[in-house]
Amino acid sequence: MEFTVKQIAALLGGTVDGNESLKISQLSKIEEGKEGSISFLANLKYEQYLYTTAASAVIVNQSFQPRQPVQATLIFVDNSYSAFTKLLEQVNRLQPTEKVGVEQPSFIAETTRIGDRAYRGAFSYIGENCLIGSNVKIYPQAYIGNNVTIGDNTIIHAGVRIIDNTVIGQNCVIKPNAVIGSEGFGFAPEPDGSYRAIPQLGNVIIEDNVSIGANTTIDCATVGSTIIRKGVKLDNLIQVGHNVEIGRNTVIAAQCGIAGSAKIGENCVIGGQSGITGHIVLANRTKVGGRSGVTKSVKEEGVSLNGMPAFEVKDSLRSALVFQRLPSLEKRIGLLENKLNNQ
Amino acid sequence: MEFTVKQIAALLGGTVDGNESLKISQLSKIEEGKEGSISFLANLKYEQYLYTTAASAVIVNQSFQPRQPVQATLIFVDNSYSAFTKLLEQVNRLQPTEKVGVEQPSFIAETTRIGDRAYRGAFSYIGENCLIGSNVKIYPQAYIGNNVTIGDNTIIHAGVRIIDNTVIGQNCVIKPNAVIGSEGFGFAPEPDGSYRAIPQLGNVIIEDNVSIGANTTIDCATVGSTIIRKGVKLDNLIQVGHNVEIGRNTVIAAQCGIAGSAKIGENCVIGGQSGITGHIVLANRTKVGGRSGVTKSVKEEGVSLNGMPAFEVKDSLRSALVFQRLPSLEKRIGLLENKLNNQ
Amino acid sequence: MEFTVKQIAALLGGTVDGNESLKISQLSKIEEGKEGSISFLANLKYEQYLYTTAASAVIVNQSFQPRQPVQATLIFVDNSYSAFTKLLEQVNRLQPTEKVGVEQPSFIAETTRIGDRAYRGAFSYIGENCLIGSNVKIYPQAYIGNNVTIGDNTIIHAGVRIIDNTVIGQNCVIKPNAVIGSEGFGFAPEPDGSYRAIPQLGNVIIEDNVSIGANTTIDCATVGSTIIRKGVKLDNLIQVGHNVEIGRNTVIAAQCGIAGSAKIGENCVIGGQSGITGHIVLANRTKVGGRSGVTKSVKEEGVSLNGMPAFEVKDSLRSALVFQRLPSLEKRIGLLENKLNNQ
Repeated sequence: MEFTVKQIAALLGGTVDGNESLKISQLSKIEEGKEGSISFLANLKYEQYLYTTAASAVIVNQSFQPRQPVQATLIFVDNSYSAFTKLLEQVNRLQPTEKVGVEQPSFIAETTRIGDRAYRGAFSYIGENCLIGSNVKIYPQAYIGNNVTIGDNTIIHAGVRIIDNTVIGQNCVIKPNAVIGSEGFGFAPEPDGSYRAIPQLGNVIIEDNVSIGANTTIDCATVGSTIIRKGVKLDNLIQVGHNVEIGRNTVIAAQCGIAGSAKIGENCVIGGQSGITGHIVLANRTKVGGRSGVTKSVKEEGVSLNGMPAFEVKDSLRSALVFQRLPSLEKRIGLLENKLNNQ
Repeated sequence: MEFTVKQIAALLGGTVDGNESLKISQLSKIEEGKEGSISFLANLKYEQYLYTTAASAVIVNQSFQPRQPVQATLIFVDNSYSAFTKLLEQVNRLQPTEKVGVEQPSFIAETTRIGDRAYRGAFSYIGENCLIGSNVKIYPQAYIGNNVTIGDNTIIHAGVRIIDNTVIGQNCVIKPNAVIGSEGFGFAPEPDGSYRAIPQLGNVIIEDNVSIGANTTIDCATVGSTIIRKGVKLDNLIQVGHNVEIGRNTVIAAQCGIAGSAKIGENCVIGGQSGITGHIVLANRTKVGGRSGVTKSVKEEGVSLNGMPAFEVKDSLRSALVFQRLPSLEKRIGLLENKLNNQ
Repeated sequence: MEFTVKQIAALLGGTVDGNESLKISQLSKIEEGKEGSISFLANLKYEQYLYTTAASAVIVNQSFQPRQPVQATLIFVDNSYSAFTKLLEQVNRLQPTEKVGVEQPSFIAETTRIGDRAYRGAFSYIGENCLIGSNVKIYPQAYIGNNVTIGDNTIIHAGVRIIDNTVIGQNCVIKPNAVIGSEGFGFAPEPDGSYRAIPQLGNVIIEDNVSIGANTTIDCATVGSTIIRKGVKLDNLIQVGHNVEIGRNTVIAAQCGIAGSAKIGENCVIGGQSGITGHIVLANRTKVGGRSGVTKSVKEEGVSLNGMPAFEVKDSLRSALVFQRLPSLEKRIGLLENKLNNQ
């Protein structure tokens, strides 16, 4: 890429303070700026770097007023974060186009149909009776079992395993080594203390525009479907149990676990390393703090929870602060008892 | 599948209340029942759906008494959950048989022996001097290193990695992308602050009837063996450190971590996202709640623990309740102090 | 292997108490010792086994004084643990040498250069414009994208996925199914409640002597690099978010999560299943207990933290103890209130 500051400002609908003919050849974080790079300032935690950065230009919010002299040329925009995102997208469009065609050896069953402009990487495997759309990219060493449906423009990265009967929508991204549709964890106890596996005959349905993180696992349903609704974004190393349903546009950070048959609403946000108990229901727009454990259904929409077990976030943070003073609280109780007993 | 209600009732040893000539072609969850489907009611949390379900038939417990009129035909049995499991197993037996034979290209070293009725998927790899039983299924892109032993009827799913010297018993299921026998995490500190890897020369032994979840990792021992005893069921994304031993029929839910040299007894049940400290011993039938951290050995059998650090479950839940009232407790202490000081 | 006790004592610079002509053919844990095996005693928790072990010889600390008669021959050394490590290394050197050469079918793009003494396993894949050093081992079914650099002597295990533009140093070990350089988790909210993926244009840089655990995921940066400094050791199933930096010789145990843009100092030690909040900075030599959540930057070096949210370890453990007494504390407060009100 090579743009002038002027060109970038025009793209972003921003105004320039400084030299608008400077040439920009790369994007950088503000603390790593160098000549020829453009950066942005959104989180004021990083403001200090604005005054020392070697970046040629920095995108800032319209409302921002520097408190010290700034060397870099500034581009003022409504929202510096989304403007930088727009710039990232522009640069991304300039990247070399993605692969098309078939690398050999690769495996595809005769009964399977695949659309045009597909990419099938070397050592990829596609089983029987699959229906795969147009412009689907299946990277090397990915595995697709039998009776799988994949919509147009979906990307299946290297080493992904998609087990029999899974349905995946359009414009999805499944990141490396994710496992979709593996058997759910269901066992019936036997009289001798051993367990017998309960057949897991359901499947996984992933709707359009879903992103699934690397090494994330989504189990198939016992009967019926485990369902990931349109627009859901799952980070890496997440576990989704059998018969779970995750509502539209819900975002879940890395290493969360959603136990079997839990039902999560739309537009929820769940922080990293949290757990959701099986068979509970979270209303739309529930927010869960990182490292929390939600053990009961949430009926009211828009509630924020935190802690283990999770309760209302403000109360939870208050309790956590008092927790740090517990030893002194215990002493104070002892002193009170002494005082009263000695009266 | 297609059965009549009468045939199903006969299979399950149940009695019918309703139309026993109805035809059943699929299984469903009670809240997703449709004409031609059969469902079950075990957890009374779902009782409401019994009165609205479109399922043609529902399996219920002998002791169950409907409190409203029910449209569906009912099949009464001793235990509706295990009856439904039996039905799942029956349907599962009707599925198309599993693959046999060898897909090409696949790799097998000349020094390795493999039994009859095996399946080796495309792009699977089997190293030197392995001994692999009859009716073993090795799915595409699975990796088996050198000197590995695998017993009859075991299934190695796509993308599983079984590292050198691992021993796996009969009737095991290793789910996609699990890693068995990778080097343990052992490092010796050097004077300059760096670490030197300690060679991990042991192996992993997995006995019969074990199930290992997708993306679960089980490290080889430093010396000796990491041992997973007969009948153990491990869910997805679990970490098992070097030299751990897990006793017979123990069940561990997703995302748990068992640190090095811990020894877990028989018939234990460990909830999801829990951690077990290294070098400790848990007695048989220990139960650990989800998201708990067990930091000390448990000598008495059958104890239930919860929390971080974990202690007796009832006490733990009581403390967790008081935790939610901590800010008000602190205030009450302050009030008491004021009162006493003002006397 | 076969050595005499005398030979081993000479190797370790130790002195023998017992029969120094005994033959040793294997290493064992002290509780699993048998005739012909040598073991060690470092952690006195295991002292009881010294008096019952069937091992022919046991390595103990110079300072150790048995309190009961010992059957096994003893080898006294300065540090029994590091002596045993030395012995493990000696035995490891006697193992059959690692593979060299190319197994077919495997895939390598014409534009890629690879050094001498390399191993490329069957079904491994190497994309365009990679620069791969000497004596690099790429195990079966590993994936290396485009523009990847890998230094000499690095081992890429089976099923590892190294995504485009990643840079890996010398003498690294990347364990099975780890995913390096997958897209970071960045999404911009849209007015309709959906999310748009923010392009992740940066990469991952891994310096020399780094070890990455099985099924661990390290995301590429949005811009710039996610950086793993020299000598870092990461265990299995760890999540490292985009733009994270981990300082030299830091050790992180299994299942930890490091959120985006966090910066961890040198020589830190982070216990298993812990989480580090995004955008915070941990000073050098910070220690974090297992299952902790660090939510704020740590400026002072060498601090030990514990709990969720984490605070100073001693205080945290004290609070955790009082937590177990919370129900009785609440009762004591109630009693005090009654007493005062009745005065």
